[in-house]
Amino acid sequence: MNNCYIQNTNFIIISTYINKKTNLMRIIVCGLGVVGQSFLKLLLASSTSLYKDYGIKPRIIACVDSKGIAYSPTGLDLEKVLTTKQNFGSLKGFDGPKLDYVNYIEDLDAEVFLELTPTNLQTAEPGLSNIISALRSKKNVITVNKGPLALSFSSLIELADYNNVMLRFSGTVGGGTPVLEFAKHCLKGDKITSFTGILNGTTNYILTRMADGLPFHEALDDAKQKGYAEANPSLDIDGDDAAAKLVIMANWIMGYKVTLRDVDKVGISNVKQEDINKAAIEKKSIKLIAKCDKNELFVKPIPISKDDPIYVNGTLNAVTFRSEHSGEQTIIGKGAGGMETASSILRDLIEIRQNMTTYELV
Amino acid sequence: MNNCYIQNTNFIIISTYINKKTNLMRIIVCGLGVVGQSFLKLLLASSTSLYKDYGIKPRIIACVDSKGIAYSPTGLDLEKVLTTKQNFGSLKGFDGPKLDYVNYIEDLDAEVFLELTPTNLQTAEPGLSNIISALRSKKNVITVNKGPLALSFSSLIELADYNNVMLRFSGTVGGGTPVLEFAKHCLKGDKITSFTGILNGTTNYILTRMADGLPFHEALDDAKQKGYAEANPSLDIDGDDAAAKLVIMANWIMGYKVTLRDVDKVGISNVKQEDINKAAIEKKSIKLIAKCDKNELFVKPIPISKDDPIYVNGTLNAVTFRSEHSGEQTIIGKGAGGMETASSILRDLIEIRQNMTTYELV
Repeated sequence: MNNCYIQNTNFIIISTYINKKTNLMRIIVCGLGVVGQSFLKLLLASSTSLYKDYGIKPRIIACVDSKGIAYSPTGLDLEKVLTTKQNFGSLKGFDGPKLDYVNYIEDLDAEVFLELTPTNLQTAEPGLSNIISALRSKKNVITVNKGPLALSFSSLIELADYNNVMLRFSGTVGGGTPVLEFAKHCLKGDKITSFTGILNGTTNYILTRMADGLPFHEALDDAKQKGYAEANPSLDIDGDDAAAKLVIMANWIMGYKVTLRDVDKVGISNVKQEDINKAAIEKKSIKLIAKCDKNELFVKPIPISKDDPIYVNGTLNAVTFRSEHSGEQTIIGKGAGGMETASSILRDLIEIRQNMTTYELV
Repeated sequence: MNNCYIQNTNFIIISTYINKKTNLMRIIVCGLGVVGQSFLKLLLASSTSLYKDYGIKPRIIACVDSKGIAYSPTGLDLEKVLTTKQNFGSLKGFDGPKLDYVNYIEDLDAEVFLELTPTNLQTAEPGLSNIISALRSKKNVITVNKGPLALSFSSLIELADYNNVMLRFSGTVGGGTPVLEFAKHCLKGDKITSFTGILNGTTNYILTRMADGLPFHEALDDAKQKGYAEANPSLDIDGDDAAAKLVIMANWIMGYKVTLRDVDKVGISNVKQEDINKAAIEKKSIKLIAKCDKNELFVKPIPISKDDPIYVNGTLNAVTFRSEHSGEQTIIGKGAGGMETASSILRDLIEIRQNMTTYELV
């Protein structure tokens, strides 16, 4: 970059001094399940508007799944990546320059690392190690993997700050519903004092069906049949998924330093039909509620009034924020979905890009 | 300002080069009803955090109501302004340097003009002329007055752009609930294709009471008694207030160029008990719905399913946004309230301040 000399003028638009080099946004995608594939499709569909509206030209230089790597330093053909994944079930058969698994995160030059491997709430791996490698090699990180954040939130944020890069994770809470953005950006000048939410769609669906009269196991089978519950649904049923989201929100929104172990957690497998009937008499329904305020951090099934804005049915998620001056606000949306969650990755990407533009003179 | 020399360094934080002069935020407050007074109280309560968190030191240099002006070029004593207003019912008795009503908007040096006079949906006055004067004299404008925007949205935005200042109006829709901010800032990279909302708390309260079995006139009297409806409630009842908000949202969020006359509008005074009973059989309630999509721009009472996230009771407001990739999101909150609306003015003030910091080198 040439040195630039800022003159004594009243209105100088800073963006004039930002060099074109920041247009470069090389991305490594690690994990190519439903969300990863949806993200590639979303990029294919919105590349024109991304450049027009935000000046972003994303270039996917590597896609990695558990069996293979697709790599091209000049940018992958995303159609070809998607076709390979569809035809072979993995990237093993991808035809192109070879790249070794070991150290690829550190070795590749890229601006953004996408961590989309499955959530593991015991060890947070492989996501945790991937994110640490990416941050250490000064890559911005976007993840939809709750494990690393639920177990090591503060140290990851510190690592990102230390390396002068961003760590973003909008898709970990609310899927495509911008719950974290709402809390961070829409209430400036105010202070959120507490929040209460329904953060897990699977258990909300099961409890909705139980309120219709189905016993727990039939409601669970119905959820499995509809694809709302995994074959092993314990992450949802036991409240771990909701607790992980609660931890992420408590850290990010309230500035707490808590992990999964700090959550007082009760799942829904002991909810009895008689509890549901008792609630119904008071015009309430049992919901798996996650709550965070000064004295409480819990996930438990409790009765909620049908007049409460967070009373939502089916697979919907809802969160009510309470703030000092602007009252209570509730945000409701689908908590999952491939394309919806992919849209949250795109939002993070745009935020990272805008931050790069503001803070860097290249 | 001294000239500054930017060296050939990769990470230079631009804010370092922004001079202190932008800290100056002189404000004229025009209209000192419930919202205006709440705003002054909010400033008194949050001055420390405003400076700490956002670098803002607001200085109210003039407060104007229909009978008098309080003026001090070095910043008014807000406690004294509030006491005068409380004791005399107006600012007529304010003891301080005198200022003439005529041309004070143009003549005073200030960064921000707050337009808080009552909404007039016929002529938009006096708000419209006030806003035009302020924009022409290169002042940023914040208003919670729906009239000028419902009748002249596009030309006011153009005037602001031409004069290189901002026009903000978060409090016109949703009171303290950040409906406009949500739509503008939380769905980046996506495109809102339509929205549906309950935008008027008074009519929602009346329809809620009617669903409880009260006839229209008794429900209206109840709303008046509780302070939810004005003595002359026609702005609410006839759907004008909801239509004005719909117009503001359609222009700002969807980029339409529409005014009040473009809204297909039906009020609630002809809603019959039999309509309500018929809806109840289908587990629905009649709500005054505002809708905007490609082919429709209407406000009318229609039956809404109790399972729909925008189904809210009492004085609550709710809006569902539909977008291309991230699905449907609903935001619910109190649509009015002095302190809540004041908090929206504070948000606008912070946004204006942040914009000044980004674009100016003084």
